[in-house]
Parts: sequence; C-alpha cells; structure tokens
Amino acid sequence: MKKVAVIGASGYSGEELVRLLLNHPQIELAAVTSRQFAGQTVAQVFPKFASHPRARALRFTEPNAELLAKQAGIVFLALPHGVAAEFAVPLIQSGCIVIDLSADFRLRNGEVYREFYGHEHPAPELLGKSVYGLPEVYRAQIRDAMLIASPGCYPTSILLPMLPLLRAKLIHPNSIIADSLSGVSGAGRKAEADYLFCECNESVRPYAVPKHRHLSEIEEQLSLVAEQRVVIQFTPHLIPVNRGILTTLYVAPAEQFPDAQAAGVWAGKVSACYQAAYASEPFVRLLEGRELPDTKNVVGTNVLELAWRVDARTGRLVVMSAEDNLVKGASGQAVQSMNILCGFPETAGLI
Amino acid sequence: MKKVAVIGASGYSGEELVRLLLNHPQIELAAVTSRQFAGQTVAQVFPKFASHPRARALRFTEPNAELLAKQAGIVFLALPHGVAAEFAVPLIQSGCIVIDLSADFRLRNGEVYREFYGHEHPAPELLGKSVYGLPEVYRAQIRDAMLIASPGCYPTSILLPMLPLLRAKLIHPNSIIADSLSGVSGAGRKAEADYLFCECNESVRPYAVPKHRHLSEIEEQLSLVAEQRVVIQFTPHLIPVNRGILTTLYVAPAEQFPDAQAAGVWAGKVSACYQAAYASEPFVRLLEGRELPDTKNVVGTNVLELAWRVDARTGRLVVMSAEDNLVKGASGQAVQSMNILCGFPETAGLI
Amino acid sequence: MKKVAVIGASGYSGEELVRLLLNHPQIELAAVTSRQFAGQTVAQVFPKFASHPRARALRFTEPNAELLAKQAGIVFLALPHGVAAEFAVPLIQSGCIVIDLSADFRLRNGEVYREFYGHEHPAPELLGKSVYGLPEVYRAQIRDAMLIASPGCYPTSILLPMLPLLRAKLIHPNSIIADSLSGVSGAGRKAEADYLFCECNESVRPYAVPKHRHLSEIEEQLSLVAEQRVVIQFTPHLIPVNRGILTTLYVAPAEQFPDAQAAGVWAGKVSACYQAAYASEPFVRLLEGRELPDTKNVVGTNVLELAWRVDARTGRLVVMSAEDNLVKGASGQAVQSMNILCGFPETAGLI
Amino acid sequence: MKKVAVIGASGYSGEELVRLLLNHPQIELAAVTSRQFAGQTVAQVFPKFASHPRARALRFTEPNAELLAKQAGIVFLALPHGVAAEFAVPLIQSGCIVIDLSADFRLRNGEVYREFYGHEHPAPELLGKSVYGLPEVYRAQIRDAMLIASPGCYPTSILLPMLPLLRAKLIHPNSIIADSLSGVSGAGRKAEADYLFCECNESVRPYAVPKHRHLSEIEEQLSLVAEQRVVIQFTPHLIPVNRGILTTLYVAPAEQFPDAQAAGVWAGKVSACYQAAYASEPFVRLLEGRELPDTKNVVGTNVLELAWRVDARTGRLVVMSAEDNLVKGASGQAVQSMNILCGFPETAGLI
Repeated sequence: MKKVAVIGASGYSGEELVRLLLNHPQIELAAVTSRQFAGQTVAQVFPKFASHPRARALRFTEPNAELLAKQAGIVFLALPHGVAAEFAVPLIQSGCIVIDLSADFRLRNGEVYREFYGHEHPAPELLGKSVYGLPEVYRAQIRDAMLIASPGCYPTSILLPMLPLLRAKLIHPNSIIADSLSGVSGAGRKAEADYLFCECNESVRPYAVPKHRHLSEIEEQLSLVAEQRVVIQFTPHLIPVNRGILTTLYVAPAEQFPDAQAAGVWAGKVSACYQAAYASEPFVRLLEGRELPDTKNVVGTNVLELAWRVDARTGRLVVMSAEDNLVKGASGQAVQSMNILCGFPETAGLI
Repeated sequence: MKKVAVIGASGYSGEELVRLLLNHPQIELAAVTSRQFAGQTVAQVFPKFASHPRARALRFTEPNAELLAKQAGIVFLALPHGVAAEFAVPLIQSGCIVIDLSADFRLRNGEVYREFYGHEHPAPELLGKSVYGLPEVYRAQIRDAMLIASPGCYPTSILLPMLPLLRAKLIHPNSIIADSLSGVSGAGRKAEADYLFCECNESVRPYAVPKHRHLSEIEEQLSLVAEQRVVIQFTPHLIPVNRGILTTLYVAPAEQFPDAQAAGVWAGKVSACYQAAYASEPFVRLLEGRELPDTKNVVGTNVLELAWRVDARTGRLVVMSAEDNLVKGASGQAVQSMNILCGFPETAGLI
Repeated sequence: MKKVAVIGASGYSGEELVRLLLNHPQIELAAVTSRQFAGQTVAQVFPKFASHPRARALRFTEPNAELLAKQAGIVFLALPHGVAAEFAVPLIQSGCIVIDLSADFRLRNGEVYREFYGHEHPAPELLGKSVYGLPEVYRAQIRDAMLIASPGCYPTSILLPMLPLLRAKLIHPNSIIADSLSGVSGAGRKAEADYLFCECNESVRPYAVPKHRHLSEIEEQLSLVAEQRVVIQFTPHLIPVNRGILTTLYVAPAEQFPDAQAAGVWAGKVSACYQAAYASEPFVRLLEGRELPDTKNVVGTNVLELAWRVDARTGRLVVMSAEDNLVKGASGQAVQSMNILCGFPETAGLI
Repeated sequence: MKKVAVIGASGYSGEELVRLLLNHPQIELAAVTSRQFAGQTVAQVFPKFASHPRARALRFTEPNAELLAKQAGIVFLALPHGVAAEFAVPLIQSGCIVIDLSADFRLRNGEVYREFYGHEHPAPELLGKSVYGLPEVYRAQIRDAMLIASPGCYPTSILLPMLPLLRAKLIHPNSIIADSLSGVSGAGRKAEADYLFCECNESVRPYAVPKHRHLSEIEEQLSLVAEQRVVIQFTPHLIPVNRGILTTLYVAPAEQFPDAQAAGVWAGKVSACYQAAYASEPFVRLLEGRELPDTKNVVGTNVLELAWRVDARTGRLVVMSAEDNLVKGASGQAVQSMNILCGFPETAGLI
C-alpha cells in the first residue's frame, strides 16, 4: 500500500479527493491537513464518510511539509494558487512526488502566470519541471513525473475535445469558441454573498467575460499541439447545480466545405479522429447516434462525455462535453495521474 | 375597458398571460378556454390567483371561436402550432384582432414552415398578413395589425441583441453563434419523463442540435434586416430553473480590427448603436460598467437585459441577453403588443 | 399620496417591501436607507426593479431618523433586532408611525425578550405600546397604532391556523406541535458558509431544535388567546427553495372522541370555526375538498393557504399552512397593516 | 462469486440496485430484466455506469422467472406491488432466494394489505413466510430467509428511531407523530405532471394526508415490538431534492416528567437505549453534541443519521433521522440483507 497525503483537504475538491483516496484499493491515506480542522477526524469534518473506518481514525493535522514528507511518498496539494507552490518546493526537495490541483504549475511561462494571476510566480525554477496531468495526452510523461500539475475543470472540458482535432489539423486553431456552464462547487466553499443559495438558485449568469484565468493554460496547451499561437473565445456561466460542467464548442473546419457532400466526408474524418484518440480511453465516452451529453450522466464519475455534430448549413462543427468538475475536472483526474505514475491499473479506485 | 379572451390558457404561457391580463388596468379578461378545465374557475385551476376577484368569478369554457368573437374584441391564442391557425381564421373573419403566441404566423414562407414544423401550413392565406410582434422593431406595424404573431422565447433573446448591429452593418451576418440556456418551463406542462424533476435537477444538457425549430423565424427576421440570406448557429440547452433564458452570442465585426485601438473605436460604435436602438425602450435594459445579465434580475418582468464586450484578443464581440421566457419571451411581449395596438401606454400592466 | 420610508432596505425582506411599495397605488416611497448602498439608486441595487421610474430616481441614503421623520409619515424598519428599537424611539417621538419588521416590539415582556434574544430590551418603555401586526386578529388595534410589530414568518404560519381553534376552545392548548419548513431566504442575505448554494441544495435539515427564538412570540400570542400559559413544540427545517414556509401542525382536540361519529361532529366544528374566522378574509385561503397547501401557490402573494384533516384513527387534527415567508410572513403583512391604519382598501397593492 | 439477478431494473431504485451490485466485490450481476429496455445493455440504459465493463456487457432481457431461476441463486424484485408477488411465487418454487423491494410481502396480514393497497393479496400463502428485511432488527431471521421483504423508505426512517425506545418501554406507543420530507425520486420515474420539474421546484407540499400506504407496515412493525396495537400519525411531504428523507418524530415519554431533573434522567435513558441499540451498527450514525441530521450527509450512502433532543419545556422527545430513500430506504438495505444471508461482511459493497 502506497502512502499518500492531502494538504488542504477542506474545500470541495479536497473533500472529493479524500473520498476517492479512502476507497482506493492500492493506497493508504496517511495524512490530511487543514488549518481550520486540525485535531478533528475526517469523519467529523465530512459526515458523509462517517461509516468508513479510516475516516474515523484519521485526524486532520496542521500542514507541515517536513513531517508530511516522512509520512507519505505522494502528496496532493488542494490549496489556493500561490500557496501551493510554497509547499511544493520543500516536498520535492524531500523526495516526495507532488500532485498539485492548483494552477501554480500548469503554465510553462512565468510571465503568463503573472498576467493572469496577478503576482510573481512563487517558484519559477519548478515551472519547466512539471507535467500537465492530462493522462489522455501526457500519459508517458506522467509515468516519470516528480511534479504533476493537474488541469483545471474548464480546461479539461475544452482540451479533451479540441486537442485531437488540432493535432490532426482538421480545424482552424483560432476559430475555437468555448461556451461553458459550471455548477456552483466550482467557486469553492467560500462564504461570499454571490454564492448564497438564494443568489444562485433560479439564476443563470455569465462571469469573467471575456478573460477568465483558465484561458492561460487552455491556450498554452492548444498552442503546443497546434504548433502555433492559439487564441480562443471562452465564456463561463454559473448555473444552479452543485456539480458538473457542460461545454459547447464551436469551431470552423480547417478548410471550408464546398458542398454538403464534402461536409459529410469531413464529418467522417472528425469521427475517425475521435475514435482513434479515445475509443480505448477508459474515461472518455464518445456518444453515438442521437445521444447528447448530460452532466447528470457523469456526476460522481471520472468520465468525460463527448458528442459532436457537423452542421452543413453553417459549415461549423459543434462539439459538446460533460464532466464532473470535481472528479474528471479535479480530483479524479489527479488520482488517474497517480495511478499511472504508481503503475496501478489506470481505473483503480475510479470505477 | 377593452374585452379580451385567451384560448388555451392551461399551459405555462397561458397561465402567465392570465396573470398579466387579470392585473391589467385597461382591459377586462372576458373569457378563457381550456378543454381540460372547462367549467372550473380560473382561481380553481390556478390557485396562485385565488385572491383575485375576477379569477374567482371567471370560468373556463370549451373553445368556440364564434362565441368568443362575440365576447371579446381581442383574442390571444396560447395553443400548439397547427391548432392555433385553425382558430385564427374564423376569429379574424369575425372581426377579432388575434394575438397568436404559437409559431403559426411567425414565418412569411409556407415552405420554410413545412420544413421546420413537418406539416403543411394550415392557413397559408394569412401568412403574408401577420405582423411579427416584436415591438422594439415593428411598433408601427403592430398599431394597425389584425393578426400578430408574437415571437418565440429564444428568437426574442437573439433578435433584440442582433438586429441593431445587423441594421448598422457593424457585424458579419453569417458569423452569428447563439448559445442559449433555457429554464424547463420552456418545454411546457407536458407529462414527459424527460422533464421530470429528477431528470432535470442536477442536470444540464444541450438538445435539438444543430437544427432547432426556432431557427426558422430567427433567420427570417435576421435576413430581412440584413437584406441578405442569414444562416446562424444556435444551440439550446436545458438548465434546472423554472424560468429564464440566458443567451450568449458570438459575432465577428464586419471588418477585422487591425489593432487594439481600432477595436476600441469599433466598441464605441457598438455602444452607440445599442444606445440609439434601446436607450429609450422601456423593456430593454442596457447594462453599464462591469454588470452582466442574470436571469434572476428579469424573472417575472418584461425586461430583456443586454450587455456586450469587445474582445480585442480574439477580434470578436460577445453579447449576452437575459429574459423571462414566459414574459418577454411570450406573454408579456404579447401584452406589450396589445398595449400598442390599443393605444394604451406601452408599459400598462407590465411594470 | 402618503409618504413612506424604509430603513434598512438591503436584505431580502427589505427588497420585497420596496417592491410592494413601488407598486402601491396610494403611497409614495419617499426614502430608502442602507449604509452599504447609500448613494446608489434603488434600480442599481435591485436590477429587478430597473424598469420602474421611481426605482431609477430614488437613491439610498444613510439612515438618519431625524431627516426621515421630515420626509415620511410612516417608516418601515427592516433592521436586525436590537438595532430596530434604536430607530423606533426617535421616529415615534417625532410623530412618525413606525412599522417594525424585526422582533423588537413583538413581545410584551422584556424578560422573555432577554431570555430569547440574549440582551436587554433597548426600549422597554415602548414594549406595552406596540400592536402585534397580525391583521386577521388585531385589525381594530392596528387602525390606531403608533408602533406596529409585524409578526415573524414562522409565527404567522402557526398563529393563523391555531388562534381560532384556541379561541373556540376546540383544541388542547398544550398539545400543539408545529413542524415548519422554510426556504433559505429566511436566513437573510448573510455571507455564511451554511447558506451557500452547495450546502443547501440537495439538502434538508432541522435547526435550532428545540428552542427557536420565534417560540417567544408564538407562545405569547397563543397564551393571550387561550387565556392560559401555552407551551408548544416547534421544529424549523431548512429546505432548498428560495421562498416559502410550509407548516404542519398536530393538535389534540379539547376532548377525546369516543367514536368515529363524534370525530365527524368535531370535524364539522373545526370547519365551521375556520369558516367563521377566515371565509371573508382576503388573504387566508381555506382549501376545500382534497386540495392541500403548496408553497408554489402562494409565493409572491400575501395569501396563507390553510387545510386540515381530522384523523379518526389517531384522534388528532392535522392542520397545514403555506405562505411566502417574505410576503405574508414579512413585508406583505406589514403593507397590509399599513393599508388598515391609513384607511386604504386592505388589499391595495397586494393583489 | 454468487450470481444474482434484478427483475424490473428500470426505475430509480432498480438503477441504484444495479449500481450497488455492479460494484459489489462478492457477487456477479448475472441478469437484469426490463420489458421497456430488453435488448439494450445496462451501459446504454444508464449512461452513468458506462465505464463499468460489466455494464457494457450485460443486456436487459424480458422478465422470465423460469430462466432467471437458472441464471441466479438470488433474485431482487424491483417491481410495483401486486406484480412482484407474481414473480416471487415461481422463483421461490424454483429454489431461488427472493429479495423483494415492493410492499407485497411486508405485511403479515392479508386484510391490512387489501385495506391499504386496494386489491386482494396475490400470494397470501407466502405472507407468513417472509422476513421483514430490516437488518438492525431482524438480522438473525434474515440469515435463513427464503423471502425477504425489504422495508419501504419512510418506514425505515421511522422504525429505526422508534423501535428501540418502544422495546425499552421508554415512550408512549400511541403518542408517535412522524413528519417526513422526501425527495422526488420517491415518486418513481413515472411521467406524471405532478412530478414535472416546474411543479416540484420551488414547491413544498404535504400529500396522502392522513393515511399513506406505508402506515400499514410501520404500524405492524411498531405493534410487534410494543406488544400492543400501535397507531401513529404520519405526514409525508414532497420537497425539491432528488434524494433523501428527513423524518422528525415527536413522542411522549411513557411517564410524564415531574421536573427538569427527571427530564434529564430520562434523557440519559434515551441516550443509553440508542447507544445499546446502534453504537456498533455500521449503518446507523448516532449524532453527538450539537449536530443534527442533514440529508446531504447520507445521500449515496447506506447510513441513517439519528439525533434526539429531550425538550424539558414541553415534556416531549424530538427524534430526527436522515437517510437516502434509494439506498438505506431501498436498494442499499436490500444489499445489506443479501450480505447477511450470504455470510458476506455486512458492509460489503456498501462503504
């Protein structure tokens, strides 16, 4: 049994990570930390896990990198950006493998970090050493990683649908428009009036238009694969569900269709491209026939649902994805990376 | 007091129409019909109106065009498409003014009707005689109309943002992408498993991709103003709220910006265009500063909220609108048209 | 047009009060105050009212009793308990009529106030001078009141069902059990983690068991009518709706039924009692036949729905009420009291 | 690996049962039936399980008792009452163990069945042979059962809190009042207008007052333990959540307290009684300190949360329980029974 620890386990992603790790057949959750909850058991803080023996035994401690490095070989960071990097440095120096759920190591470029996050990167020396933890794309690199930057929830819902098409040069890189709908858990467990029940229920609203922070990592990843600078349009919306992201993407084909027949041929290429990329992936579900994604099908799972339609009327491709923002968009994906780097079956603890 | 009647008042739009008409200071609700509820009072069928004296007195009757033509000078049709036209013909022959909330008279072209609605138009002779009841655009024609085709909920949320920009030739007509989110009341009061609480709650999903029926009237109206055939991309989504539509529109400027300064100049033109179109409209609210639309601000009102952002990074314009699908997207707009043709203050019964 | 002011108009009850007063045909909303929003218009703070001309013109000011006394003859206090009393004293001295939505003047007994609210009453000299603003019970006293203590939301949902039965000595006073379910707006617009969307959605929970603050005014009012000390059981629960209270009451008849026939006779007395009390009340709806209360029938209205069943199996009476906690449970009831004391039709601005 | 089958796996309980059985470490889900879905795989019908290999392989078949008896040693019935009994008879004759989630075998008395379910019992000869599948009470009998009648959701939420107190003669048997709040999944996946999203969202309502069908099994079980005829008051309410039941119970102590000190002594007995009954039960969580039950803590788990307060003011005991109506209230409990009779660890597949 591999020993793992979670630093900052009191938020929604942290709670979900604890759930997955408690039930994982090949690891032992050796330590969890939280300044707020130090001294309490996991079962006391999260009553949902109260019937789990390990949750009743394990107590939150104050975060202490030195101590944790002795207790666990793999440490997950479920901390705000900026703070995560501060813990990553000593943990890596102590020989731990770090899987960071924050944005701190997702970018290769410290200047882009400063532009989007508003402060200097706290550990620029590590920027080039992290692996972007999107297993369907970086599986080989994850195997040997010392520092995994687990992707954000919106980026996952956009990158998995777009990267294969970009790599196959089927679409025009700068035509991508991503319209995303997110459940309220994406905002975290912060006591802010904007996220009160009565302010979110019976409400739908866009926010952070037109420049959301996640654009930085989305565009960097798209650019790497497209081998050119990619700029996209991205609009997040808040909708009254606890969990789930539904992203609808609009893209132009690399070349315009002369006629409906050409559109059909191109549609076949798109389907073949997705089949090649994902048919054997355990956590990407390609929808067939008339089925369309629905967040209720993926909530609580590590699956991303994917469907697409070529619209011969408009000459565009519409791609739709659904995921659980806290699982495939955060904690489940981090566990998937851990499974890869530990040599466990990739689905261990995730089905 | 003008006498009005509502045929088919048992659905969500019909109920909302009854609410508005009961409280309207210058009309008398003379008759309401419903096969299902004939014999019961409005107060019995809709307990929400039970404290209203008129709702306690007025009983639903079987729909009978001849009889209604004697009871009311204006008749609202809140019926399914196809059925509405059957009632419109005799009512108009009897000299009634008809305000139809269905799709039956929104199109000028019977062939497009057949393509999108799957059957021959039941009264093609009336197709050219109806006025599209969007007051902000067709106010003059509404004044003298005999037959008003009140716009659909999605079309209103797209046309009001797009028409001024198209008329001013500020945007590329075929670049329009409309991503819409609708509350479940948009599906009507049908007992179908897809709209059960447990199937909609904690769920978000696209539907009718890529060719929803409302595209027909949206594109016809856009084409009229653009003076060219306009084809748009439109994706509706179902979200777990009772009411409200939030539409996010992505459009390309008529000409690309050479630089950020040019983007700023063009942004000024967009703002001026919206100000000219809507600053004095009572039911369009142009959001200023950093404010963005939120359906909870418009639910229960006849207002459409409108905000826009020029994104210099991508060269696109993002426009966002919010409305109540049952009010500005249906019954409120129909009452607004009635106010215009009756010479009442346009806001009567709507503020 | 009578001039009225609202102090503390930024919470949910305050917002609802502003909505009702903006649309009231016989009053002018002369002033609204809020430390947080001073300087902004009502339309800016509450976009929902943005199409109302008065909301666009009227600006929030800092609360200043002296100034307000010059601007308005009637002042509503929508303030936290303790603070409300501080404003009431100078306003009454200046000759204003005060309608207080807080708990400050609902009790006659300062000691009970201290027991339940945890501090000394800030203006004990006014305790005996206020009228409990439940129009169906204290209509005559409201007419001449200088200080109206508008009842709480839970108390209204319990007192209206129980008082007629107690007065008629039909039920055993100390047998009353009230099980109440409240929407989240009852907790106010406080930024506390307990009321975040994700903490309330898909959750139901009791709270403040067994001694909620509202017990003090409920028991005082019941005792006055029963002419004996009444102690009741009361359990509030939080449910994931914005608005609405549903209260189910369990009571024992004053005397046990010897048989089913006697139960039927007694059921007739209960019905007659409710008919006598409420048949002509505009804001109490007695449900007939098999109908049961549903909060969605009363949300946005000043109506309380009331149904009851005598259970011959158990020998108990079950009474159920539904109301909108922000209207009949707060602001609507306060406006109803205002209508009475101003000599307006009691339903003015409330239908 | 024990082979099990599920008949009627298309409703909400059936789906939840399939979820639990797919993930159970010691059984193989050998067959699932559904007239509606025959021929489709489990993964096609329930996309949520699509990443599970067994769900992709297993196809729904038409229900055929003879065939199923060959495929599985244990058969779960997730069918409507009346229909379940028809399948139980041949399955038991073929030597299968039957675990029935319907109401068909929960009562010992065929006349009570007819009174509450409106038709003759379809297999009265089996009535005396079934075991009521409440493991915390009938664990020994479940071990040797051939036919297990798994309890209803409301009964579980009432019986677990009440039975230990009744057995210890701490409470007055006929004083029990149960006020229950249920999520909409309790109504099943029926396409009825009452359960449409817009009819349930922003709504709370009682129903089936005062004589719900579940009263029959609740009172029979209470009577058995109390050794006298017990009649209780029970009011179910529908609240807008997918899952979860919260029950608040009001009971009188067997003897009145003379004073507050006596109340304290009695409170100690209640606590000791619950500790004795449930401290070592894996699926009953006794809440300590100030904690109160919340359905969000138990949704998706087989746990029932239990808290209680002695109210010295009123002389009553208030007991509150929370459970997932589809897990501890249905499918999880059925799996718990299966674990017991198979000799598996009782928590297998349930933590």
